[in-house]
Amino acid sequence: MKNILIASTSSLHGSSYLEYILDELAVFFKEANEILFIPYARPGGISYDDYTKVASGAFSKINKTVRGLHAYDDPKEAVKNAKAIFVGGGNTFVLTNQLYKNDLIGAIKQRVENGTPYLGTSAGSNICGLTIRTTNDMPIVYPPSFKALAFVPFNINPHYLDPDVNSKHMGETRETRIREFHYFNTQPVVGLREGSWLHVNNSSIILKGNLSARIFEYNKVPYEVVPNTELSGLK
Amino acid sequence: MKNILIASTSSLHGSSYLEYILDELAVFFKEANEILFIPYARPGGISYDDYTKVASGAFSKINKTVRGLHAYDDPKEAVKNAKAIFVGGGNTFVLTNQLYKNDLIGAIKQRVENGTPYLGTSAGSNICGLTIRTTNDMPIVYPPSFKALAFVPFNINPHYLDPDVNSKHMGETRETRIREFHYFNTQPVVGLREGSWLHVNNSSIILKGNLSARIFEYNKVPYEVVPNTELSGLK
Repeated sequence: MKNILIASTSSLHGSSYLEYILDELAVFFKEANEILFIPYARPGGISYDDYTKVASGAFSKINKTVRGLHAYDDPKEAVKNAKAIFVGGGNTFVLTNQLYKNDLIGAIKQRVENGTPYLGTSAGSNICGLTIRTTNDMPIVYPPSFKALAFVPFNINPHYLDPDVNSKHMGETRETRIREFHYFNTQPVVGLREGSWLHVNNSSIILKGNLSARIFEYNKVPYEVVPNTELSGLK
Repeated sequence: MKNILIASTSSLHGSSYLEYILDELAVFFKEANEILFIPYARPGGISYDDYTKVASGAFSKINKTVRGLHAYDDPKEAVKNAKAIFVGGGNTFVLTNQLYKNDLIGAIKQRVENGTPYLGTSAGSNICGLTIRTTNDMPIVYPPSFKALAFVPFNINPHYLDPDVNSKHMGETRETRIREFHYFNTQPVVGLREGSWLHVNNSSIILKGNLSARIFEYNKVPYEVVPNTELSGLK
């Protein structure tokens, strides 16, 4: 029993935090009045308190209370008692490192596999995959492992970006990076464009939002899937 | 006694492999007829043989022979005997992982600190810094450590890219990523634009090429330095 939203981004260009997905979240979190927010990814180095205020401001619009995990003396106990969980974006290495440091990987997995709704955006979505090996983030800290929550049987690449055909920059495109990933790893990768999300409902995994997603399977040519495609067969 | 070139990229847009820096390399490698090439970073998953052919093709223009490290039975011994070393670009995690796997970090450090000329491009430049924590690459493998060769007392960010003010993409800019780095690390970061390189000569570290570099120091506003600036004071 799983109920998970894996969103590419928290915000679309020109719109406020979570605004594009707020109607969806009102339904998704309908059974929960309070959401446990995990602010560990600290985008731009923001403090846990300030980051929690940002999340709180957005959720107040749909009448939800948000409490930051850092406000609890015993984070593991807080996860065990959570009625709903939101893991915000930022740096995936920082997030993963802190989850391991506080020994929360198992606790979150258990809680979410028992049906507690989980929302991830960006880094919070990266960790829903098998590993964080397809994050776009800079490895500013060294986590004890790249293994993640494995809520889905593949990896996530959030903020998926199509190659800029006019670019003169010699850095690798996203597609090249994911191709390199497949020289060393065999699981599929779902490239989620901004504004897209996956809805995991028990064994079903549906692509939502207005855009197609790009699927990278080992030894296959990458391909597009349209919204409402069932992705549970991908493994 | 050190003699090191730390180049942002191997190729500029529209020019062939190493072409922009070949005149410089003819001088830099003047004492060496044969260059030991370390192809471990495997850009785009290219084979060691094919990658070595690319390097070989470029160096043949300045009458240098190139031999890939993978062609030796004992890579550590090959490093110890090298007259010159070139570490090519690709994926920094893959490169670092393979260097640790073959126990080459110490051997390369020792050889280069004894005066053997070392050229790095892109990933091969990342590993010249204190750590690989400012790489732009995807963490497709998990190396035993992020510690690098520490030829310079700071970190390198190759392919440094200025923010695109017209972008609607919500991924972090390079500057934001490096600012996040400084929430967890205190060493300076040198953002090397494509076509720039650092020349390390004993204790001197000079910025070369036509472009300025962007310097990020802990708790300071980032700033630009022009070509021919001495950077050895940066630590």
